[in-house]
Amino acid sequence: MSEKYSIGVDYGTQSGRAVLVETKTGNIIAQAVKEYTHGVIDNVLPCGVKLKPDWALQHPADYIEVLEITIPEILKKSNVNPSDIIGISIDFTACTILPIDKNGIPLCFYKELENNPHAWLKLWKHHAAQYEANKLNKIAEERGENFLKRYGGKISSEWLFPKIMQVLDEAPEIYDLADRFIEATDWVTMQMTGLEKRNNCTAGYKAIWSKRDGYPSKEFFKALNPKLENVVDEKLSQNIYSIGQKAGELTKEMAEKTGLIEGIAVGIANVDAHVSIPAVGIFEPAKMLMIMGTSTCDILLGTEEKLVPGICGVVEDGVLPGFFGYESGQSCVGDHFEWFIKNCVPNEYYDAAHKKGINIHQYLTEKAQKLKPGESGLLALDWWNGNRSCLVDADLTGMILGMTLSTKPEEIYRALIEATAYGKNMIINTFENSGVPINELYACGGIAKKNPMMMQIYADVTNKEIFISASDQTPALGSAIFGAVAAGKEKGGYDSVFEAAKVMGKVEDYTYKPIPENVEVYKKLYKEFEILHDYFGRGQNNVMKRLKGIKAEVKNNA
Amino acid sequence: MSEKYSIGVDYGTQSGRAVLVETKTGNIIAQAVKEYTHGVIDNVLPCGVKLKPDWALQHPADYIEVLEITIPEILKKSNVNPSDIIGISIDFTACTILPIDKNGIPLCFYKELENNPHAWLKLWKHHAAQYEANKLNKIAEERGENFLKRYGGKISSEWLFPKIMQVLDEAPEIYDLADRFIEATDWVTMQMTGLEKRNNCTAGYKAIWSKRDGYPSKEFFKALNPKLENVVDEKLSQNIYSIGQKAGELTKEMAEKTGLIEGIAVGIANVDAHVSIPAVGIFEPAKMLMIMGTSTCDILLGTEEKLVPGICGVVEDGVLPGFFGYESGQSCVGDHFEWFIKNCVPNEYYDAAHKKGINIHQYLTEKAQKLKPGESGLLALDWWNGNRSCLVDADLTGMILGMTLSTKPEEIYRALIEATAYGKNMIINTFENSGVPINELYACGGIAKKNPMMMQIYADVTNKEIFISASDQTPALGSAIFGAVAAGKEKGGYDSVFEAAKVMGKVEDYTYKPIPENVEVYKKLYKEFEILHDYFGRGQNNVMKRLKGIKAEVKNNA
Repeated sequence: MSEKYSIGVDYGTQSGRAVLVETKTGNIIAQAVKEYTHGVIDNVLPCGVKLKPDWALQHPADYIEVLEITIPEILKKSNVNPSDIIGISIDFTACTILPIDKNGIPLCFYKELENNPHAWLKLWKHHAAQYEANKLNKIAEERGENFLKRYGGKISSEWLFPKIMQVLDEAPEIYDLADRFIEATDWVTMQMTGLEKRNNCTAGYKAIWSKRDGYPSKEFFKALNPKLENVVDEKLSQNIYSIGQKAGELTKEMAEKTGLIEGIAVGIANVDAHVSIPAVGIFEPAKMLMIMGTSTCDILLGTEEKLVPGICGVVEDGVLPGFFGYESGQSCVGDHFEWFIKNCVPNEYYDAAHKKGINIHQYLTEKAQKLKPGESGLLALDWWNGNRSCLVDADLTGMILGMTLSTKPEEIYRALIEATAYGKNMIINTFENSGVPINELYACGGIAKKNPMMMQIYADVTNKEIFISASDQTPALGSAIFGAVAAGKEKGGYDSVFEAAKVMGKVEDYTYKPIPENVEVYKKLYKEFEILHDYFGRGQNNVMKRLKGIKAEVKNNA
Repeated sequence: MSEKYSIGVDYGTQSGRAVLVETKTGNIIAQAVKEYTHGVIDNVLPCGVKLKPDWALQHPADYIEVLEITIPEILKKSNVNPSDIIGISIDFTACTILPIDKNGIPLCFYKELENNPHAWLKLWKHHAAQYEANKLNKIAEERGENFLKRYGGKISSEWLFPKIMQVLDEAPEIYDLADRFIEATDWVTMQMTGLEKRNNCTAGYKAIWSKRDGYPSKEFFKALNPKLENVVDEKLSQNIYSIGQKAGELTKEMAEKTGLIEGIAVGIANVDAHVSIPAVGIFEPAKMLMIMGTSTCDILLGTEEKLVPGICGVVEDGVLPGFFGYESGQSCVGDHFEWFIKNCVPNEYYDAAHKKGINIHQYLTEKAQKLKPGESGLLALDWWNGNRSCLVDADLTGMILGMTLSTKPEEIYRALIEATAYGKNMIINTFENSGVPINELYACGGIAKKNPMMMQIYADVTNKEIFISASDQTPALGSAIFGAVAAGKEKGGYDSVFEAAKVMGKVEDYTYKPIPENVEVYKKLYKEFEILHDYFGRGQNNVMKRLKGIKAEVKNNA
C-alpha cells in the first residue's frame, strides 16, 4: 500500500490553515494558510451598518474560501496523489455560532437580512452578551442548577446561550427566523458532508450539555425567558456525536471545490485547544497541555468527574473518549507582554535591539534571563485582562509591587512572565487539591517554542517537567489525526485516537526540567503571590472593583 | 539713603548659587551659579583611592570657590556699589559634615590624610552609616531615650552622630585627629567671619540637640561606644546660636576674595529647606511649605511641641525664632517621574514629543491632564525610594494596581503623581491628628512652577489652597533675607526675620484652589490609598520587606 495522508484544517481568529500529514509518521508534508477575506468584523458590517462596542462577527463564506484555497495549495506543494488522502477533519475557535435556515444557509446570506448584525456569525470574542450571561448565572444560582459546578460556578458571556439570549433580546425577529443556531465548526463540517452531526466538545464546553444530563431543563430555560422554554428542541439539535467519530463523507461538490476525492472520511468537528491533546501524544490523565498564545488555554484528562472551583469546564468524552476533559485558562499571557512592550519600554531599548538586529522581545529576554529568581524584588498579579480560572472574575486588574528607583524594564518584563507562571501554578494547585492529579506539563503555541526563558520559569515555578510540542501547527496536526481516525485502520488510518496519538503526536527531544535552587526561591515568591491573590481576589480588599466602579462613574458623568 | 542690598548663597548638591537682593522689595537684582569643580565624590577620591558603595563625599574647597566666583559675578552683573551691600548669609544641604583641626582646617587638606576617605567631608546623601544608625536607634529605644519622640521615633543614617560613629568605627585615627566635627554650613560661615558660631537648625534637626535638653546624655553616648562618652565636649561645640542672629562680620581676607566690603554682617548659617520659609512670606503657624524637587521636604511652624508619629523632627526656634519648626518629607517625588520616563515610556511618545518640540514630561503632562480623577482606574503607593514620613521605613517599595490591557503610559504617569499627593495628604492628616493644624499649603522648587497639573492634583487631593513661591531661587532669597536681618534696620535691613519676611518674601498672584468635584473623587481614592498604605506599610503584609530579603539572599548566594 502506498503512503497515506490525512488533512487537518485549523480555523483561527484571523485565518485558516491546512496541513497535509503522513499518517504513518505524523510528519507534516505541506501546509498553507489563508487570511480571511473579511477578517474580524468588529466595527462596520460589509453593508455599512455600524456595530456597537464589544461586538465581533465573521463572514461564514470566509471559512469555505479557506478550504477552496488552502487544500489545492497543499496538494500542489506536496505533489501527493489525492487518492492517497484518506480523511479530513477541522477545528475551530469556539464558541463561534451562527443562525441558519432549515437548509443550513446562514441567515446573513439572505440579502434582506445582511444589514441585521444579529443575522451574522458571532465570533468567540463577541463580548456584548454580558448582560445575558449575568442574568443566566443569577437565575441558575437561585435555582441551584447543578450544571454550574461543572463550569467552576459561572457560564461565560462568550458561550452559546448568552449569545442566543442576546439575539432574542435585541432581535427577536432573527430568533424567530432562525431554524437553528449552530457552532461554526459543525457548520463547516456540515458543508463538507451534507449531514448535520454536532460535536460533543463545543456542546459540552460551550453549550452546557453533558452526556449524562443533556442540556439544562425546560424549566430553567423558561425561567430565563418564556420564549426559550423549548430552545433546545426548536433551535438546536440533539444529534451530538463524540469527537473521534466519523461525521460523514466528502460530498461531490466539496470534492470538486478542493481537488480531494469524493467520499473520503470527514471527522466530527473539534475545537482548537482540545484537538491539540493527541497532537502532543497525550492519551492519558495527569498531563496538562498549555496552549500558549495571547491567552493560555489548559486541557487535562481525568478519570473521574471532580468539581474543581473556578475552572472553565469539565466534559465527559469532551477531549478524548473515555475520559473527563478539564479546561482552564488564563486570559492574559502573550497580551500581557505585548501591552508591556507597547507601553512601558523605553527608547534606548528599542535602539539597542535594532542595533543588535533582534526584536524587542528578544532583547528584553536577553536581559531578563540574566536575572536570578527573586533578584528583582518584584511581584505581580497577572490580571491585566481579569482572571479566567480559579477566581473567574473579569473585574480584577493588574498589580505590581517591589519597585525601587533602580528597577529596570527587563525586571518588570520578567516579573510579568513570572506572574503568569504563578497564575498557572495556582490553577495546578486547585486541580490537585480537588483530586485531579497533574504530573507533567506540555506546551504548544508560539510562546512554547520561542521563549525558552519563559518555559524554564514555568518549570521552576510549577516544579514540573515541561514537554514541548514538536509541531508548529499543533491544532492542525490534531485535526489531521482525527481525520486519520475518521478514515479508520483499513484505509491506512487508525481505529482509535489513542493509537493515532501514539504514532502521530510528537514532542521535542528536549524538555524543561525544574532547577532545584530556582524552585526553592520560587516557592517563597509563590507564597507571597498566594497571599496577594487571595487578598485582592477573594474579597478581603475589593479595591480593584471599587476603582473600576469609580472609573465607570467618572466616565458616566463626563 | 541709597538702595541697600543683601546677598544669599544657597549651596546645593551639585552647585552653589548667589543672589543679590534689594532689601526694600525682595527683588532679585542679579544671580550667578557655580558648578562644583569636584562635584559629588562617590566613586574615587582625587588621589585615586576607591570608595565603597553608598559613599558620598565633597571637597570643601569647592564651597569657597563658589564665593570667589559667584559674588564678583553678581557685583558685575548688577553694577551695584559694594558699599550698598549690607549683609550676607548662606544655606546648605544638611547633614553635611567634616572633621577639622583646631584652626578650622579640614583634615582632608592635609597631604598625609588626603587618601583617607574618612578625612573628607561627608555629604548629606552619604548612606554608608546605616549600621551605626541602626545601633544608635536600638540603644536609644532600649534606654527609652526621650529625644526619639522629637524625631518621629528614628534617627536617620544621614545625620551627625551615625556619621561620626562611622568614622570612629572605621577610622579611629581620624576620629582622634579631628579636633571637631562641624556642619559644612557652619564651616563656610566660619570662613567668612573667622568665628565659629554654630546654627541651631542643623543642631536641632540633624544633631539631636534641643534648646531645652541640649544634646543626649553622656551615658547614652557611652552606651554607644565608651570612646563617645564625651563626644559633645571633645568633638563638637556648645556655641549654638539661633538662626536670624548675626554670626559676625566679613573678614578682610574674604572681602578681598569676593569684592565685598570688609565688616558687613554675616548671618548665622542655615539649611536650604528651612531657610525658604520667610522667602515665601510665611511667618506664622498652620502654613506648610513644600520644597519640591527629586524628593520633597515639608516645613511647618507650630506654637507647641507636639509629638507627631513618623515625622522627621521638631525643633524649637529651628525655623523661625519663637516657634516650633516641624519637618517632614517624601523621599521620592521628582525622582519618581524621572524613573518613569527613563524606564517606562515608549518610543512613539518620545517621537511625538520631539515632533511637537516639547520634552517628554510636557508631552506626558499634556495627555495626563486630559484625564479626570479616577478615570484611569489606577492607584499607586509612592514608595519607590522607601517612605520617609509617617512610616519612616526605607525598606518599603513601590506598588501600582488597576492596570488593564488598555492602560496607557500617561495614566501610569498621572497615577504616580497622584500617589505622591496621597502621600502628602497622609502627612498632613498625621500632623492634624496630632494637634498641629495646617490651613494652607505653599510650594517652591522646580516642580511648583513647572507643573500646574501636579499642583492642581495636590490641591484637589489635600483639599487645600496652594500658594506658589514667586522666586525661582527660594532658598537663596531666604538666605538674603537672613543677611538683611543680620545687618539690622539701621543699616537698611531688618531687625527681625518677621518684618523681613513680610516685605521680602513673596508668592505668585495665582493660587491653586481645590475643585469640588475632583475633591469628591479623590476622597474616595484616598480612602483606598489609606487601606493599602496601612496593609503594606504597617505590618499587615510585610511582603515588600520579605521580597527585599529574598533579593538580598539571592545576591549573596551569587
